[in-house]
Amino acid sequence: MSETIGFIGLGRLGLPVATNLLQAGYSLAVYNRTASKAEPLIAQGARLAARPADAVAAGGVVATLVWDDEALESVVMSEGFLENLGQGGIHISMSTVSPETSRKLASIHAARGSTLVEAPIFGRPEAAEERKLLIPLAGPKDAKDRVRPILAAMGGEGLYDFGEEAGAATLVKLVGNFLIVSAGHSLGEALTIAEKNGVDPVAVADMLTQTLFNAPIYQSYGKRIAQKQAPFGQSKIPMKDVGLLAEAARRAEAPSRISGFLHELLRSEAE
Amino acid sequence: MSETIGFIGLGRLGLPVATNLLQAGYSLAVYNRTASKAEPLIAQGARLAARPADAVAAGGVVATLVWDDEALESVVMSEGFLENLGQGGIHISMSTVSPETSRKLASIHAARGSTLVEAPIFGRPEAAEERKLLIPLAGPKDAKDRVRPILAAMGGEGLYDFGEEAGAATLVKLVGNFLIVSAGHSLGEALTIAEKNGVDPVAVADMLTQTLFNAPIYQSYGKRIAQKQAPFGQSKIPMKDVGLLAEAARRAEAPSRISGFLHELLRSEAE
Repeated sequence: MSETIGFIGLGRLGLPVATNLLQAGYSLAVYNRTASKAEPLIAQGARLAARPADAVAAGGVVATLVWDDEALESVVMSEGFLENLGQGGIHISMSTVSPETSRKLASIHAARGSTLVEAPIFGRPEAAEERKLLIPLAGPKDAKDRVRPILAAMGGEGLYDFGEEAGAATLVKLVGNFLIVSAGHSLGEALTIAEKNGVDPVAVADMLTQTLFNAPIYQSYGKRIAQKQAPFGQSKIPMKDVGLLAEAARRAEAPSRISGFLHELLRSEAE
Repeated sequence: MSETIGFIGLGRLGLPVATNLLQAGYSLAVYNRTASKAEPLIAQGARLAARPADAVAAGGVVATLVWDDEALESVVMSEGFLENLGQGGIHISMSTVSPETSRKLASIHAARGSTLVEAPIFGRPEAAEERKLLIPLAGPKDAKDRVRPILAAMGGEGLYDFGEEAGAATLVKLVGNFLIVSAGHSLGEALTIAEKNGVDPVAVADMLTQTLFNAPIYQSYGKRIAQKQAPFGQSKIPMKDVGLLAEAARRAEAPSRISGFLHELLRSEAE
């Protein structure tokens, strides 16, 4: 495992994921727009890259975990990135972006002889620390086979294969996040209605999340809501991701009534 | 257990629940607007009442499981019903109605010396047959204590106490049904979006309902949707119950954005 992996994007999720890789014995070359965030990794032996292209080795593997479509495109199109990755190189794309952007970047890679593997992450930073991430996968078979042990080392407890087509795993991520946001906001509204009607919301959450809704998502958001926290805090991720899903629905001429409404609701609450 | 229980309302859920009572050794006096639906119970020894009041014994216990607020009120206000139940009698109200109606009927009972216990049922007819019903409870303590063994005999696997105030258990039922409908419709939309984007909806449902959403509700609706069935078939229950919740929210000046939207969506789909 002396292979050096490039890792770009050391946010709240990227940092624990990269840390897992280091601890599993991989060498890392890391890049982050705010370089100071790389310090804990440098202290553990990672090499700091001055620009994205410097985290990339010829024919090697580079993972990106950045905020949005624009940030991802700017990394891939940055000077030297595709050139350095070159023939046989693999880009593990772990950000939550639109399927369209992902398909476009997969084509750009393919034209250069490198491969994009979609591997967006389900899991909060704590789940990364506990190595309990869920990762839907899409991309050419050989590339997926090569990156599976790397994804497992990142903390991917469950890897779910959605075939070879770019866009598929990205869409699964959007679908999952939409369901999470719908569940969290519906639960929040439900418990508020209970409370305003004089019914103890903690008792309601306890009953429902031990029975009909005994899934991790409901249990963790039930606890947050019962403690008077907003289900998703101040995070802008729900608005961004539900917006991406609603857009993917419209492009495919699929119904987007609930996702479209939820996106509008989140936008109005953010104002 | 030779006590005779009155049972009014032998619909898809009422019939298996009443059957459970008979099989547990209780004697039954049953009433249903369409009397022929009582036949399987009569064959097992239940007595057919000609009108609701004839299913009620002085100081006894009568359960009602009818379609809506109007049907419930018409039973309670029917000739002889309250008179026959009399002092010390208990009305177990198991229908899904508005908290307001339930509170009103609880007052009417209290003025006559009888007691209303709210015990609305979570569970499809199959769950009744398997004696796996979940029942939130509300009402005066002594009355709840008296009916608990009866509810267990009906198939109530889990009884959840929400205090003495009428309206509380009814609201919990509405909140639960809203969350079920929100989950089912969000999942339906999500899987349709996946399919229209070329991603196998069965694979998506499998991944999500084994991990983040590994709760009975998602698993059963995931299966239905993957088999191209609408999550709730042609049932009018979702529209009715989400409407009741949205109304309860508005009366309590609680937010009803998602529930209100969902109610409008269900209305528009029913047209």
